[in-house]
Amino acid sequence: MAVAGRTARGSSSSPVFLKLESLQRTGSFKMRGAANRLAKLSPEERTRGVVAASSGNHARAVAEACRLLGIPATVCVPEWVDPLKLRAIQAAGARVVLAGPTYDDAEARAAALTDDEGLAPIHPFDDLDVIEGQGTVGTEIVEQLPGVEEVVVPLSGGGLVAGVGLAVREHGVRVVAVSAERASVMHVSLLKGRPVQVPEEETVASALSGGIGMENRFSFDIVREVVDEHVIVSEDAIRSAMTRAFTECRLVVEGGGAVGLAALRSGYEPRGTAAVVVSGGNIASEVVSDLVTS
Amino acid sequence: MAVAGRTARGSSSSPVFLKLESLQRTGSFKMRGAANRLAKLSPEERTRGVVAASSGNHARAVAEACRLLGIPATVCVPEWVDPLKLRAIQAAGARVVLAGPTYDDAEARAAALTDDEGLAPIHPFDDLDVIEGQGTVGTEIVEQLPGVEEVVVPLSGGGLVAGVGLAVREHGVRVVAVSAERASVMHVSLLKGRPVQVPEEETVASALSGGIGMENRFSFDIVREVVDEHVIVSEDAIRSAMTRAFTECRLVVEGGGAVGLAALRSGYEPRGTAAVVVSGGNIASEVVSDLVTS
Repeated sequence: MAVAGRTARGSSSSPVFLKLESLQRTGSFKMRGAANRLAKLSPEERTRGVVAASSGNHARAVAEACRLLGIPATVCVPEWVDPLKLRAIQAAGARVVLAGPTYDDAEARAAALTDDEGLAPIHPFDDLDVIEGQGTVGTEIVEQLPGVEEVVVPLSGGGLVAGVGLAVREHGVRVVAVSAERASVMHVSLLKGRPVQVPEEETVASALSGGIGMENRFSFDIVREVVDEHVIVSEDAIRSAMTRAFTECRLVVEGGGAVGLAALRSGYEPRGTAAVVVSGGNIASEVVSDLVTS
Repeated sequence: MAVAGRTARGSSSSPVFLKLESLQRTGSFKMRGAANRLAKLSPEERTRGVVAASSGNHARAVAEACRLLGIPATVCVPEWVDPLKLRAIQAAGARVVLAGPTYDDAEARAAALTDDEGLAPIHPFDDLDVIEGQGTVGTEIVEQLPGVEEVVVPLSGGGLVAGVGLAVREHGVRVVAVSAERASVMHVSLLKGRPVQVPEEETVASALSGGIGMENRFSFDIVREVVDEHVIVSEDAIRSAMTRAFTECRLVVEGGGAVGLAALRSGYEPRGTAAVVVSGGNIASEVVSDLVTS
């Protein structure tokens, strides 16, 4: 684990709590932002339908929320989308576009569909309604865990970190963002001071893959503002965290959802009572089988 | 599924909530009763130590609670104890006695150790302190789910059902007890009007195996008093419920913990808003691997 922006410190015995968004409806926190965004559509937009690009979890959330609300949904996903997520999206009745080998391909296709068919775009992270929705994770942490001093949150496009950060910082809670080493575009962008592009790499934390958008409007700036500390975790640490969550805590956690746990496994020590956001649990049974038998 | 004491009814759309004792410390509700019982030991009893017979979960809970409290623990388990539970018991530092091929063998050995070594017995279900401790599951359900109309609770020796029943009935909540077809000693005993012995059968719900004691003092009478309806579920229904909990809800549930879910899978329909107690999640990785790949 690389730790950015701080020096090593002694061992800590502060309690750590887990916010289990892996048990959230659709298996990740994404339902929160999608639902909040959809709730603000005009009647005309509802009728025409929406489009979303996603590495899987956002698409699943949009598909399910649209099913519940009776809104036509189209989702654009990269070809490497997890098969479990794909099946769930199809089961919710959404139109699925397998857009190409990268997340950016999915995003480009969604943009084209917005133009061509007049579909309302439901952005996975760079949207204030989506960010506000994801922020309810932070609101609940503060309500459910009085005295929380730190939140440890997976970082990808920044929707979750931005939302949670805005929700908790008025309570004096530290915000720690954890990136997967092989999906750290936001982290690299922050170091550069502007959104940059990084070649997409295969990672067990596929939910965190994808660019942040060269024209990023909101999440980059908010993340820069609200995050107190960054941690980067390796593939091995993520796999180890997934296995341990499963065997010791009976929790099914996907790679992207496990990066906070991976940080703890890698030696990161929270300063005080911490809530680690376990952001998703959508992994195919085959992956689980590998994890438990390895 | 056999349904005792009621006729079929039409389909229902009442919401169902899960009380996830599978995520409880030590992986089952058993910590509640064990801790409550241990808290009432005299200083002398604490020093001499305790003994418990168990098919696994109670032993694990006693071992862990004793480790936290610094009390010497001996646990007697049948030879078929789940390897995951056995490893956890050993990791907690308890003395383990592999007592023979049946749960009753474990119970006999624990009784002998009570006499020979003066160890305080921590009974898995037929003890008012244990029953009171398990009852906190019911107390929490009523607190966490205002408006709950029914609880669906796994039935074995009756400690959980008795405790939960006593806790919720003053709130007008119906109590539905679910037995595994191949571990239904309490159910058979209730039909006979007195505790009876039934040959132990192998079952995927091993946590529910074991007799209720021919000299049963408390749990039989309390269960008879508090239960409004009984449901019996098959091995197939339990396996199906475990698989579905895993693949659809990302929940690791052991067979004994899944009988309430199995009842729903088998056509049982709660009357109104229901809380299903998912009582434990301690299954070995090998079992999970079978479940997800079958």
